[in-house]
Amino acid sequence: MSGRIDGRAVDELRHWSFQPGFLKHPLASVLACCGNTQVSCAVSVKNKVPSWMKAQKVPGGWITCEYGMLPAATGERTKREASAGKQSGRTMEIQRLIGRSVRTMVDLKKLGEFTFYCDCDVINADGGTRCAGITGSSLALEMAARSPEGCGFFPEGSFREGVAAVSVGIVDGVPMLDLCYEEDSAAEVDMNVIMTASGKIVEIQGTAEGKVFSRSELNDLLDLAEHGLKEIFRRRNEVLEAFLNGKK
Amino acid sequence: MSGRIDGRAVDELRHWSFQPGFLKHPLASVLACCGNTQVSCAVSVKNKVPSWMKAQKVPGGWITCEYGMLPAATGERTKREASAGKQSGRTMEIQRLIGRSVRTMVDLKKLGEFTFYCDCDVINADGGTRCAGITGSSLALEMAARSPEGCGFFPEGSFREGVAAVSVGIVDGVPMLDLCYEEDSAAEVDMNVIMTASGKIVEIQGTAEGKVFSRSELNDLLDLAEHGLKEIFRRRNEVLEAFLNGKK
Amino acid sequence: MSGRIDGRAVDELRHWSFQPGFLKHPLASVLACCGNTQVSCAVSVKNKVPSWMKAQKVPGGWITCEYGMLPAATGERTKREASAGKQSGRTMEIQRLIGRSVRTMVDLKKLGEFTFYCDCDVINADGGTRCAGITGSSLALEMAARSPEGCGFFPEGSFREGVAAVSVGIVDGVPMLDLCYEEDSAAEVDMNVIMTASGKIVEIQGTAEGKVFSRSELNDLLDLAEHGLKEIFRRRNEVLEAFLNGKK
Amino acid sequence: MSGRIDGRAVDELRHWSFQPGFLKHPLASVLACCGNTQVSCAVSVKNKVPSWMKAQKVPGGWITCEYGMLPAATGERTKREASAGKQSGRTMEIQRLIGRSVRTMVDLKKLGEFTFYCDCDVINADGGTRCAGITGSSLALEMAARSPEGCGFFPEGSFREGVAAVSVGIVDGVPMLDLCYEEDSAAEVDMNVIMTASGKIVEIQGTAEGKVFSRSELNDLLDLAEHGLKEIFRRRNEVLEAFLNGKK
Amino acid sequence: MSGRIDGRAVDELRHWSFQPGFLKHPLASVLACCGNTQVSCAVSVKNKVPSWMKAQKVPGGWITCEYGMLPAATGERTKREASAGKQSGRTMEIQRLIGRSVRTMVDLKKLGEFTFYCDCDVINADGGTRCAGITGSSLALEMAARSPEGCGFFPEGSFREGVAAVSVGIVDGVPMLDLCYEEDSAAEVDMNVIMTASGKIVEIQGTAEGKVFSRSELNDLLDLAEHGLKEIFRRRNEVLEAFLNGKK
Amino acid sequence: MSGRIDGRAVDELRHWSFQPGFLKHPLASVLACCGNTQVSCAVSVKNKVPSWMKAQKVPGGWITCEYGMLPAATGERTKREASAGKQSGRTMEIQRLIGRSVRTMVDLKKLGEFTFYCDCDVINADGGTRCAGITGSSLALEMAARSPEGCGFFPEGSFREGVAAVSVGIVDGVPMLDLCYEEDSAAEVDMNVIMTASGKIVEIQGTAEGKVFSRSELNDLLDLAEHGLKEIFRRRNEVLEAFLNGKK
Repeated sequence: MSGRIDGRAVDELRHWSFQPGFLKHPLASVLACCGNTQVSCAVSVKNKVPSWMKAQKVPGGWITCEYGMLPAATGERTKREASAGKQSGRTMEIQRLIGRSVRTMVDLKKLGEFTFYCDCDVINADGGTRCAGITGSSLALEMAARSPEGCGFFPEGSFREGVAAVSVGIVDGVPMLDLCYEEDSAAEVDMNVIMTASGKIVEIQGTAEGKVFSRSELNDLLDLAEHGLKEIFRRRNEVLEAFLNGKK
Repeated sequence: MSGRIDGRAVDELRHWSFQPGFLKHPLASVLACCGNTQVSCAVSVKNKVPSWMKAQKVPGGWITCEYGMLPAATGERTKREASAGKQSGRTMEIQRLIGRSVRTMVDLKKLGEFTFYCDCDVINADGGTRCAGITGSSLALEMAARSPEGCGFFPEGSFREGVAAVSVGIVDGVPMLDLCYEEDSAAEVDMNVIMTASGKIVEIQGTAEGKVFSRSELNDLLDLAEHGLKEIFRRRNEVLEAFLNGKK
Repeated sequence: MSGRIDGRAVDELRHWSFQPGFLKHPLASVLACCGNTQVSCAVSVKNKVPSWMKAQKVPGGWITCEYGMLPAATGERTKREASAGKQSGRTMEIQRLIGRSVRTMVDLKKLGEFTFYCDCDVINADGGTRCAGITGSSLALEMAARSPEGCGFFPEGSFREGVAAVSVGIVDGVPMLDLCYEEDSAAEVDMNVIMTASGKIVEIQGTAEGKVFSRSELNDLLDLAEHGLKEIFRRRNEVLEAFLNGKK
Repeated sequence: MSGRIDGRAVDELRHWSFQPGFLKHPLASVLACCGNTQVSCAVSVKNKVPSWMKAQKVPGGWITCEYGMLPAATGERTKREASAGKQSGRTMEIQRLIGRSVRTMVDLKKLGEFTFYCDCDVINADGGTRCAGITGSSLALEMAARSPEGCGFFPEGSFREGVAAVSVGIVDGVPMLDLCYEEDSAAEVDMNVIMTASGKIVEIQGTAEGKVFSRSELNDLLDLAEHGLKEIFRRRNEVLEAFLNGKK
Repeated sequence: MSGRIDGRAVDELRHWSFQPGFLKHPLASVLACCGNTQVSCAVSVKNKVPSWMKAQKVPGGWITCEYGMLPAATGERTKREASAGKQSGRTMEIQRLIGRSVRTMVDLKKLGEFTFYCDCDVINADGGTRCAGITGSSLALEMAARSPEGCGFFPEGSFREGVAAVSVGIVDGVPMLDLCYEEDSAAEVDMNVIMTASGKIVEIQGTAEGKVFSRSELNDLLDLAEHGLKEIFRRRNEVLEAFLNGKK
Repeated sequence: MSGRIDGRAVDELRHWSFQPGFLKHPLASVLACCGNTQVSCAVSVKNKVPSWMKAQKVPGGWITCEYGMLPAATGERTKREASAGKQSGRTMEIQRLIGRSVRTMVDLKKLGEFTFYCDCDVINADGGTRCAGITGSSLALEMAARSPEGCGFFPEGSFREGVAAVSVGIVDGVPMLDLCYEEDSAAEVDMNVIMTASGKIVEIQGTAEGKVFSRSELNDLLDLAEHGLKEIFRRRNEVLEAFLNGKK
């Protein structure tokens, strides 16, 4: 139980916080922070849907995600994707993951023909940006769905429940919760777990980064993740209730 | 236990086969087939490594993967990515997954400054192309590493063990092994499991496609996958031994 | 008459063969082989036409071609055009040539508003891929036009006649038929001849690769090409008839 | 003197502020704010210079700027340039302007072979983002040049003096200082003025947006800009001194 | 007053000339020359407007500009932007400037739903290409608006007045008019001034290229520019009248 | 023999002319005109060769071609390829053809490590732009090789002989020489023939545009082309000699 870089216990989260209204313009926004990681999560809406969706009998609505990083968000400056002329495979993979996770929150068939954009932009990166992005987007989307400004877009019964994500991993043989960048770089196994508020699994991605792992280690990691997610939901829900009360 | 589209039991694989030497030119190649899915898997080598690797003290070698589909491989013709001018997010995600999985087979630090390209090109698609690609690439790489033509690239102790992949999912509430396209399209939960020959986990990706799932369902799916992978390894290893014997 | 790499006479074709139904999904498909060259030729259809065509009084239908190569199809691995982000000039030139040749087979004005895609994907390359692509696409298109699945797209009188292509060249001063890759690389003059079943010229492209040539040499090459194309048509038509009989 | 949207006098700035250390990783960073406009300005360094510079006898160093916006920074969501695949003309124009302005602060010939990247990323947009970007980048660069972490990159005599920028314009016939978005949209003349701390002009760009203007109007606008820039420099220098004192 | 490279007085223009009808096909065209700089300026029209314009209540028409250079137009060959795959920031900046300047000539709201394309293509470059492009485009547009072929596109009252542009700069401490390439490369201050026929300012862009400048120097440069523009308008109007008389 | 649009006999060329020194900067340049078609052909040189060439034992030099059109060169404005972000297939095909043709003029192995760029830019298009481009580039290259400025790049014995190109075609059943745009659009067969000054074939490309053709028709077209090329060489050589005499 000794020896994490920042003195945490292996089953201890970093400090998680959520700052609603970080951006002025979108339907809803949150700055999601875990440790030194800060991700701006914004939900905007446009009254159109993708053309493949339009072709369906009951189009419904759509939720999509885009992920980006300020070039100076990382230890060594990252090349700006807009000037490189394309998004990296890593960016593509992350924004597809966030999009899938957030879409499970809503019954798309019950929405009108609107597209909701979840923009996750990393302001500071210190590990766990995709988990912060999912958790922050989920919070912003629920804030939108339950606020006076946004609830009109979400008909009765269209909103299911919130989701949240956390990383777990095995570092030097020890399963750990909520890896910071240095731990993540050294991890032998790296896993992201996304769950609903009621404890069901939305997505699980576990990767051997140098050492393959057993079913038993997988179960240890899942236990850690469940433990962490309960606490993350607790903090997230506090912020949500305070925000909604402020709207009354 | 009734009712799969193609009459299989829920824990029954499709017909898996591997045709070595499908291509004439590369170091090693395999046409990996599962049911109607056919993926050409080729291993080529160039004597260079990525520049970020070159900068390291002990560069070692690198293994990368690229994934593509013949436009006519799918039920409705798919737009050619070369003429579209970019690879889709799906392609990026798949080739990153295959690359990560195959890299675990080798101790890269022990290789010389070479890059091995695993090209996975889908000839016919009927579900499970990424699993066929991983399994076929793994076989082609092991054929290369153990054949007279390729073994010089793989110093003593650099090769670990083979990997294989299979899809599992929940369709109409029933956990099933090795989904074909129609099952995959209807699946509520979709999971890909990549394991080593010795039964360790390399990567696990499980996604709720419309219904979130429990730890218990996760375990059922993992059991099915382990069961299927044993059989896939058995067939793969038969082909491998026959190929290596033919080389003697 | 001595000395071709593979022992052929100067006016002798490589082994040409055609495997119908190579792909499962498209309207028609053929694996066209000449020697070690293998090209997958598939005909797919979509119910739309290019916008410039739509603007015409009698739009009719359209036939287009796309050409690609598996990266491992060549002796040294070729960079994947999808990841390079664009098609090379060589690819563009070849697919335009195939498209033009195949379009002469059909009276486009008599078609409905459909686009037929001829996808030529090189599985193995050993010289003559564009000729194999034209001949295979022509066969697949005729199979489509005369089969129960496809004949509805081709009204009475819209289909003219098949085309085929062969390469000829001057190597070490000697005119030769159907060059393999090694001969093609050494050729002083390189020519592709595309003709109809009835012996008319569809396209002729002759290029001095290092030595300019005379009208008399041009005529020798054309004679060789005519000779080869007769034999190619004979083999192609056998496959076509067998295929159509199998459909009865 | 009546009637600005936000109640300001025509020669009155919005509230300008600068938050040093907004980002954790780069050499120096500032969140530059004017009214609701917030721009993250970061200075990073890499030890390389552009190839055209490398070819010169005395290469020196280089300073470049890149500009971007969070998609949700604007009233209506802006398409992400990274996913669009290219930077817009507006972005190009702005980042070239910021780059030119900031380069005048330093004698590039006296620098070592380093490139300094000024990343200006708009968090919230409400008019004047390029002016905030220039002023914030200038402050961050001066913070870098005079702090213990960065001063080693700036040899004696290489740093000249800071610059700052402000917008002025004619709205409904009235010259005004520091336009917010609504004023900017309605402006007949729009001008950006960049000056040094000692009151010299670095760049001036004045544009008729619907009404051409006279020399006399130009002079009125320049007077307003000089007046505003004095105040901006006063606030900027307070922040700079506090920052440098904190470093002692 | 001594010492310009080409013997001119500091307030002396190069030889300016305009050759109408340089191109055969467009609505109007001019080859605009100043010294060795030659820019082909063509005005073409299409009956469509940008989609953002279409969405407005009173769409009106649009005028846009594209700028390019023959690769061999410059001293050292410039890479072709079409093969590079994108327009440079410099090109973007210039074509945006020309577009803004030319749009002030016309009341867009009074036009029908047409887009006018001003194509400025540099045949030979020797400094001042953007000024030649603006002045030539302005002339071509006025020729179009007042000629029998084009006047139907320009309803009564839609055309305002012509514009012209000239560069001024400070070279070796001396303000100079109409810089050639060598002067431009050596200039400490570089300014482009665009004015209307009646002497109002359309756009002013002044840049310190190495030495910042004072209000007083700015005024000297503006005086020089006004002086030069009077002469440029005189020559331009002669060509315009001769052209229109030829049309009678 | 009646009835060409412009009154020519079927075996009569349009007016062909060549204006040397059309551009100021490159090593050599020509404006090649045939009828209303005008193509700027420029030869520039850089002291580098492509990397694949560099890898060879005796690298030698390289000659490449790029082709473009002013957007306003055509009857209806053509979209600018630089803003479209890529060169069309037609452009690629043409510049590859011109490059191949011009390379036959020189023994590349005898050149130093230089690349010669032939830039063919269409100023006005009225059919036959690729033929004008080849003929003009060939003339410019020979001017370079035999002029004091350029001859140093062409060692003794490296220059072979000039080439020229002309189009022929069958229009309404009649073989015709040197098609203008209207004839080209209506042609049933379209052929480009490139020959050397001494009457050898460099390249021949004949295409059925709607009607396939016989060997006998092919021969008629080749006769017409030979006839036309003799006259084109006569005019070209006059210009060449006058240019070289002017250099003495």
